[in-house]
Amino acid sequence: MADATLDIVAMGDAIVDVIASCDDEFLTRHRLPKGSMQLLTPAQADELYAAMGVAREMSGGSAANSMAGIAAMGGSSAFIGQVAEDQLGLIFEHDMHALGVRFETPPLEDGPPTGRCLILVTPDGQRTMNTCPGASHELSVDALDRDMIASASILFLEGYLFGPAKPRAAMMEAIEVAHSAGRKVGFTLSESVCIAERKEPFTQMIDSGGVDLLFANEDEALQLTGRTDLQSALGELGAKVPTLVITKGPQGAIGIEAGQMIAIPAAPVEQVIDTTGAGDLFAAGFLAARCKGASLERCLWTGAIAAGEVIKHYGARPIVDLKTIVQL
Amino acid sequence: MADATLDIVAMGDAIVDVIASCDDEFLTRHRLPKGSMQLLTPAQADELYAAMGVAREMSGGSAANSMAGIAAMGGSSAFIGQVAEDQLGLIFEHDMHALGVRFETPPLEDGPPTGRCLILVTPDGQRTMNTCPGASHELSVDALDRDMIASASILFLEGYLFGPAKPRAAMMEAIEVAHSAGRKVGFTLSESVCIAERKEPFTQMIDSGGVDLLFANEDEALQLTGRTDLQSALGELGAKVPTLVITKGPQGAIGIEAGQMIAIPAAPVEQVIDTTGAGDLFAAGFLAARCKGASLERCLWTGAIAAGEVIKHYGARPIVDLKTIVQL
Repeated sequence: MADATLDIVAMGDAIVDVIASCDDEFLTRHRLPKGSMQLLTPAQADELYAAMGVAREMSGGSAANSMAGIAAMGGSSAFIGQVAEDQLGLIFEHDMHALGVRFETPPLEDGPPTGRCLILVTPDGQRTMNTCPGASHELSVDALDRDMIASASILFLEGYLFGPAKPRAAMMEAIEVAHSAGRKVGFTLSESVCIAERKEPFTQMIDSGGVDLLFANEDEALQLTGRTDLQSALGELGAKVPTLVITKGPQGAIGIEAGQMIAIPAAPVEQVIDTTGAGDLFAAGFLAARCKGASLERCLWTGAIAAGEVIKHYGARPIVDLKTIVQL
Repeated sequence: MADATLDIVAMGDAIVDVIASCDDEFLTRHRLPKGSMQLLTPAQADELYAAMGVAREMSGGSAANSMAGIAAMGGSSAFIGQVAEDQLGLIFEHDMHALGVRFETPPLEDGPPTGRCLILVTPDGQRTMNTCPGASHELSVDALDRDMIASASILFLEGYLFGPAKPRAAMMEAIEVAHSAGRKVGFTLSESVCIAERKEPFTQMIDSGGVDLLFANEDEALQLTGRTDLQSALGELGAKVPTLVITKGPQGAIGIEAGQMIAIPAAPVEQVIDTTGAGDLFAAGFLAARCKGASLERCLWTGAIAAGEVIKHYGARPIVDLKTIVQL
């Protein structure tokens, strides 16, 4: 097995976030469950956008945010995801390159525009996401850079992109490539909304040994196992994957690995402005520390610190130099 | 003369800002004078963008920012400016409508893309602007909504757009329409960089009585008059326009009207994050107060308060409800 020349390569949605503030009443009126993620058709997205307030645009995408975070912590990362040949695609590409994340997937020439996520942030800092995935869901097996995947210590996959058939096939192929090269595969379940429809392929992938590090929140762990108490869900999942990481928002996180279970609190944050990207940055911190050979506990703390930074401001990517904060 | 049914209609650049942080060394390396505005060709803009850090996108444009500010203060405003039929154009249009600003100029179908301004913000909060005007400079006399102009108390014009011949002709025509309807015309000189090349048409317009309210900063006042001391420049300009407003950044502002000169200090601001839009919001506050019949002094204070809000955060438009702050 050749030495890895890259820390992490991720596959996920290539999305530009469109972030606006709103009050709780707006969510109720538009029947949007607070804190959720829903997929919108282009027509639904246009309608919601027209009703939304003034917005700022910032590059997003769950696994892409994680790769941005890893670069900000001094790790080497790459991203495979599909944008279109348009202005939002150029913005996404620019922001990846500006962070030093390798991103070489050619833009889609004919097809839907670059995906966008309409994010509504309520005064309590909760984010409600409304994604119009566009080109993002057109990611195909042809877009895979097999050499790049084989060169990275960890392949990191985003559950959001595991729903549509085309990118799912690309992910399954990427897992093959990574495991054949002796690499690890990380997977984040990405919101319980995905799990209801995708429980079978998710379970199959995990049962077949496709996943070495599994990231989930409490809800996702319960839904995936069909259990009602977290303890037994953790027992079931922990027996299936070598490393299990469960995030619990303000209650911190739990890691299970090699028969050991460690729980840590969340990093203290004075004022939560926008929770978008908290899970993505938690995964980034965990993975960046893991690539440096850190212990389970150190990986969890690093995740908590990175997540704590990103919820202090609007946008799902760090705005400060995380290197000095996490000190890996 | 019919009663005005609209407070203010503005003509200016329709631009999306692309905002990134940088250090002073970056400005030096790219030969960008701090605090300035320069026009870039598309190729120059692509090159600078590639060198810039991670960015956030927010709608901008000088007079457009002013109209956003007036809407945020509870005034009625409209904007005439040229975007293209593309994603940035849709973002600009959305943000105007989300604020309640009337914006009905049809997008350009064939021609350059929507303009963007690459804004570099240094740690001292100073902004250095690099504008690729794109479709914005294609604004033509055909885009004028004469009824709308005639219905507004004040027509407000942006100096940036007074350079290129096509939009300048549209502005001259708009002044005719406004004055024929018995309305006032406000003009902002928009950065001294414009004045060197446009001194003659500027002077001509002012001398011919085209301008009722003139907004300028110290530098612009000196350059336009060719004088070296502010006092004599104020004397010269104050004699030519009914209302003269000179902004002096952290030193406050001066207003001259009907033989009266009033100086006010700047609003106190704990930490300046990004000065982009300070002049635009000063003009917004002044004009919003003026439309309510406020005194020169009250107009100046309102401008100072609005400018003080916008420099506390990234982006050139207010993010809080200015109505409660300015209490017009």
